[in-house]
Amino acid sequence: MQKDSPTGLLIVYTGDGKGKTTAALGMCVRAVGYNWNICLIQFVKGSWKYGELKGLKRLEPNVELHVIGEGFVGIIDDNKSFDEHREAAKNGLALALEKIKSGKYQLVILDELNVACSLGLVTPEELEEIVAARPSELSLVITGRGATDWLKEKADLVTEMKEIKHPYQKGILAQKGVDW
Amino acid sequence: MQKDSPTGLLIVYTGDGKGKTTAALGMCVRAVGYNWNICLIQFVKGSWKYGELKGLKRLEPNVELHVIGEGFVGIIDDNKSFDEHREAAKNGLALALEKIKSGKYQLVILDELNVACSLGLVTPEELEEIVAARPSELSLVITGRGATDWLKEKADLVTEMKEIKHPYQKGILAQKGVDW
Repeated sequence: MQKDSPTGLLIVYTGDGKGKTTAALGMCVRAVGYNWNICLIQFVKGSWKYGELKGLKRLEPNVELHVIGEGFVGIIDDNKSFDEHREAAKNGLALALEKIKSGKYQLVILDELNVACSLGLVTPEELEEIVAARPSELSLVITGRGATDWLKEKADLVTEMKEIKHPYQKGILAQKGVDW
Repeated sequence: MQKDSPTGLLIVYTGDGKGKTTAALGMCVRAVGYNWNICLIQFVKGSWKYGELKGLKRLEPNVELHVIGEGFVGIIDDNKSFDEHREAAKNGLALALEKIKSGKYQLVILDELNVACSLGLVTPEELEEIVAARPSELSLVITGRGATDWLKEKADLVTEMKEIKHPYQKGILAQKGVDW
């Protein structure tokens, strides 16, 4: 960063279509091409599968991955209470703040943070604190369906991944290498 | 593939928003996690920049990249005639057909092919030939704005990357690590 400080962007990938987390993964490839340091924090456990996790290992040591979520509240029956999910989200937020402020990274990705917000696991005030903590040279990517109007207003780049057609509609199950 | 033949999908990333090629790059990360072989053919020269190209090197030897395009017709003033662009596109199509039929890859990405179609560099018949050549176990990803209705109809998965907000709107120039 000393040698080269680009203008960081606040980037939001939202919408109901596939490609949000996948685009965040693609940003890792590009950023690694510049030898940037990347911190990925996954707010919903289980959204990243074997393929992603193993593929990301090829981008080490530039990419640091943290899984902090506890599954989907009310989506996956995981026997965890809302309070446990909320606690996990709080830990994730504390970690995200630390990483964002550290100056160690050029790219921080908060995967599925929008979903955590929608579920009430992250409050609007906590989201604002995260966004406000971003140094101008850091690019911060927030993914997940249901981005708030406030976040879209605040962002530099917002793409809505809109589902036009999904394999489920053809009766095709989730596929290795594509879905997981 | 002998050991493990998933159902391949025909995937289309289209729309005017950012994230289409980036999502295709992300698919490479996931596929490499399964040690798949990937062939990437770029139909519009210059759409992939230093960061992507260097980052992809980290995914070798699984990823094979071919650049066959000759710039943007009528977009970048490249002193090339339509016939020269058409010739380059034809060479790219021949290469794509060869790779798709080879059985060597589990994932083939034809980056910006939709743009080549929109510009008339690839005919509807040629696109149909490409799609028809796909073995059922191969996943084929076609990116670029302006996917034809025929292609969307034929695809298993279509995501429209919709531009909600672009940094240009805030007067921010293209940024290293994000745009290139």
